[in-house]
Amino acid sequence: MRSLPNLDSLSLTELVAQMLVVRASGYLFDHQILYPSWEPTTDKLKRLVELGVGGAILLGGSAAEIALKTQQLQSWATIPLLIAADIEEGVGQRFAGATWFPPPMAIGAIASHNLSLAQTYAAQMGAVTAQEALAIGINWVLAPVVDVNNNPDNPVINVRSFGDNPAIVSQLASAYIQGAKSYPVLTAAKHFPGHGDTAADSHLDLPVIPHSPARLAEIELPPFQAAIAAGVDAVMSAHLLIPSWDAEHPATLSSHILTQQLRQNMGFEGLIVTDALVMGAIANRYGANEAPVLAVEAGADILLMPVDPEGAIQAVCTAVETGRISKERIRASVERIWKAKLQVSGENREQGAGTSWEQGRKTRERGETGETRERGRQGRQGRGGDRGDKGEGGDKGTRETRETGETGETRETIFELAKPEAFAVVNEILSASQVVGGNVPLMPVMPAQSASESQNLRNLIVVDELLGCDFLHRKAPAIALPTLHGYTTQLCDRHTPVVFETDDDCPTLLQLFIRGNPFRGSAGIAQVGQVWVKKLLASGNLQALVVYGSPYVLQQLLPMLPSIPYAFSYGQMPTAQAVSLSALFARSI
Amino acid sequence: MRSLPNLDSLSLTELVAQMLVVRASGYLFDHQILYPSWEPTTDKLKRLVELGVGGAILLGGSAAEIALKTQQLQSWATIPLLIAADIEEGVGQRFAGATWFPPPMAIGAIASHNLSLAQTYAAQMGAVTAQEALAIGINWVLAPVVDVNNNPDNPVINVRSFGDNPAIVSQLASAYIQGAKSYPVLTAAKHFPGHGDTAADSHLDLPVIPHSPARLAEIELPPFQAAIAAGVDAVMSAHLLIPSWDAEHPATLSSHILTQQLRQNMGFEGLIVTDALVMGAIANRYGANEAPVLAVEAGADILLMPVDPEGAIQAVCTAVETGRISKERIRASVERIWKAKLQVSGENREQGAGTSWEQGRKTRERGETGETRERGRQGRQGRGGDRGDKGEGGDKGTRETRETGETGETRETIFELAKPEAFAVVNEILSASQVVGGNVPLMPVMPAQSASESQNLRNLIVVDELLGCDFLHRKAPAIALPTLHGYTTQLCDRHTPVVFETDDDCPTLLQLFIRGNPFRGSAGIAQVGQVWVKKLLASGNLQALVVYGSPYVLQQLLPMLPSIPYAFSYGQMPTAQAVSLSALFARSI
Repeated sequence: MRSLPNLDSLSLTELVAQMLVVRASGYLFDHQILYPSWEPTTDKLKRLVELGVGGAILLGGSAAEIALKTQQLQSWATIPLLIAADIEEGVGQRFAGATWFPPPMAIGAIASHNLSLAQTYAAQMGAVTAQEALAIGINWVLAPVVDVNNNPDNPVINVRSFGDNPAIVSQLASAYIQGAKSYPVLTAAKHFPGHGDTAADSHLDLPVIPHSPARLAEIELPPFQAAIAAGVDAVMSAHLLIPSWDAEHPATLSSHILTQQLRQNMGFEGLIVTDALVMGAIANRYGANEAPVLAVEAGADILLMPVDPEGAIQAVCTAVETGRISKERIRASVERIWKAKLQVSGENREQGAGTSWEQGRKTRERGETGETRERGRQGRQGRGGDRGDKGEGGDKGTRETRETGETGETRETIFELAKPEAFAVVNEILSASQVVGGNVPLMPVMPAQSASESQNLRNLIVVDELLGCDFLHRKAPAIALPTLHGYTTQLCDRHTPVVFETDDDCPTLLQLFIRGNPFRGSAGIAQVGQVWVKKLLASGNLQALVVYGSPYVLQQLLPMLPSIPYAFSYGQMPTAQAVSLSALFARSI
Repeated sequence: MRSLPNLDSLSLTELVAQMLVVRASGYLFDHQILYPSWEPTTDKLKRLVELGVGGAILLGGSAAEIALKTQQLQSWATIPLLIAADIEEGVGQRFAGATWFPPPMAIGAIASHNLSLAQTYAAQMGAVTAQEALAIGINWVLAPVVDVNNNPDNPVINVRSFGDNPAIVSQLASAYIQGAKSYPVLTAAKHFPGHGDTAADSHLDLPVIPHSPARLAEIELPPFQAAIAAGVDAVMSAHLLIPSWDAEHPATLSSHILTQQLRQNMGFEGLIVTDALVMGAIANRYGANEAPVLAVEAGADILLMPVDPEGAIQAVCTAVETGRISKERIRASVERIWKAKLQVSGENREQGAGTSWEQGRKTRERGETGETRERGRQGRQGRGGDRGDKGEGGDKGTRETRETGETGETRETIFELAKPEAFAVVNEILSASQVVGGNVPLMPVMPAQSASESQNLRNLIVVDELLGCDFLHRKAPAIALPTLHGYTTQLCDRHTPVVFETDDDCPTLLQLFIRGNPFRGSAGIAQVGQVWVKKLLASGNLQALVVYGSPYVLQQLLPMLPSIPYAFSYGQMPTAQAVSLSALFARSI
């Protein structure tokens, strides 16, 4: 990795540019850009990188595309870039091919009966995410979410949080950070000072948190304190108004909140990063180029996704030249950025903390299940397994193997994603957090071999959006497993008119894929799902229900389901489907 | 590129292994494999490559994934691999990110009124496909289809053919091959001796072509002769029974057809490759390991996708050891394979034919529209544009630029996909081949700004399969453009029950995405589409119709549409949607 230039050699514009992290499509080609007003073309992006922005945040694309895109971005940069992504649920949540974890609240659910197991999972999730992020060139994991989700109507945090208990959120967030920090990657605790207790969506408008400082100190702040103690590299501000702290400015733009509370009172010395400045709560209320100036004044080191990056740089420079912001303020931010960049540089990698998550896992497994299980896994592992073996000699062994690789070339690191060990962790979290109830197992109405005789079993799947749905395909368990049992699949999304056919009268397995805050009024998929549940209950045709995503939806529906078999999973990915349906169908599949 | 070993140094098993091209998923990770019975895991695939198979055919994955996968495959191989793909309609047809062309029949339609323009397009399509294939490590383009599609009920060839006229198919196939051969890539004319005149699908069963040798010589064979004359590298056999030539064996397994007709009578000296041996017509009728032996006996050099690669190698070796097949027969095939591999090796690349398609294009454009248009394009081109500029000095200049690149590293070549010049060719082919009729332009019922006032315009889209649909997303023109005009989109596929709501009575823009042979009986999407057309015509609500894909569907529907505006495009990709809807909506969008 190239070394960082001396700060004194940079102009004001160059210093300010380093404070920006701009949005970039993870796809490689301009014709794949889906949001042209937010995502710059390749030419524009290259110009911004050459101008010296500090980093990029990637959205869209597969893991393979990200691996190539990050190489391209770094090749344009004179000063190595921070490359960030919102991979709160593993790299596979955003970038297909990598490991996709269930949402953090799944681990929170495990913590309520086994805290130490949940901490292990949180640490493994942090470690796998960090390892896979680095493997494709992402050096800044914008996680963990440390918000305490104590408002079930929260449309934006919800299952992204570890739960509603500040102590558990603190412990799991700390474990996650420690896991992630076993790799030379940056983390970010978000969204300061706590986005859990609101029913408004800051993507659209500015939520208000009406609590007193005492209440904040009791519920919202402890997880941030814990994250700081665990060594989190960055804290992301929330676009929230907290009148008891600052009646005028949202946290992102509040000097009292970012500098006095976070930097001074809580003693946070790392990077303060704004949440995306393009979001409605900020973009609609402050000028595109005034918001960045206010954020820097407030104490932000990193301006994330400003509406107009070049305009933002110029506006901040003007504010310095006119004396509104001191040059020292800029310099202090860039010094923190330098420190962060050094931490993810190759040189630092050699001195990495060195705790391999795989190593820990292997030891634990052997203790639990002995050599037999270990050998069984080896058979499926191939290359990954070989490396694991070498690592048994100790932490150092694993790390060396990872770094030298077979040919020593960067492009090979992508093949270190989605290892069987990582999938095993996902499976365990899903199994340990799933809910099953009613008269299970649901005995299949007929054996699979006579499936063709029946046209009368319906597998009704409701998702938010069928087009581009990243967890369903014809071979996915939610479709393939019921098909084996003779079900015919019917799909609908929030755009599908809810129409009842007259010959609709058949036993139905209803699978609802619902996240966020769905049972709040009349909008979209939630209503479609609710309407179907009521109609199927009324006709006596609701044979079984599976909810994937929101535990709040399950809680809404449970009182209606006296003895009907049901399953709930926090995850929506194929692994979650397999786990839930196996539990439902007599585990015979 | 590594050099090829002396043939004498290889064992019989190693020689036979080189005759296999095995299937591989284009995705990078085992958990992404959708067809586990056909696609080997990474471990299995590595073992096959280490065993020395001659090549792999890739299905699935994006262009980025293919770029990484081909590097991985070659890194495992001692002898460089042939890496093939069915990219008949451009690399983007199979691998997202690259340029996606309309089906060849679009160019055939242009040929009926402007043969020379059509030949230019065919050559450009061949050149772009070859350039993009090489950029991601594919060195064997399994195209062009040279079948003469003179049977509208043909379920498998259809719009993949250049048309029903042997002379035009010959000329366009030759142009395509010449275009492709300006890059060091292999081509394949398929499916010998001609798959155009059948209504059976060889994926399922064995079609019979009942024609006399005289008729074959008149219709089916001329395009193959033309392709051979144009220097095609391989000819792919069809799984067809042609009783007048061989009453017993399908072409793929017929010595008379492959050796006597193709090799001897037609004088083809290149690679004879079977169509996929896993296909029903072969796999269901011959033993998994007997079919490969029969194919080699018949004269095939390459066994494509055998059911059981290791079993196939062993069976062919046994056939040699027992005297059923001579060792010279094997050796002759591997010599041809060596010749082909030399042709795509780095060494040969230096001596490549050197005609840059971009260069030809630039010259033509300048003649047509002068410098202004050229400059306009430069603005959007960036890096691609720079390279084009350098190339203006002559063919050699372009080629050098392409090979040295900015850093000289292979991974950079992927960014040479999907250039604006390539997209311009796609656009021109789509525009020149589209059909528009009825009372066009359809005047928008209301201006875009008052869209919210209307809930009464419906945009009804029918596709084969919504899940994983690769040409539709919420921002695609088929949805986005009607939305601008106040339409509400409703999607259905062949799994959606056709249900008529009572309040269904609104003006409807019907968009049918249909390829293959859809109006033949009761199956799937075709019926859904037909039912909708009839119902909307009966209620007087069919405001306009767009058909994407099959011109035969259009021909079926045209008599029903007296003055209703309609458009037809051979393509289904977003560019096709934009072209067709612009023609329909007053070109005002």
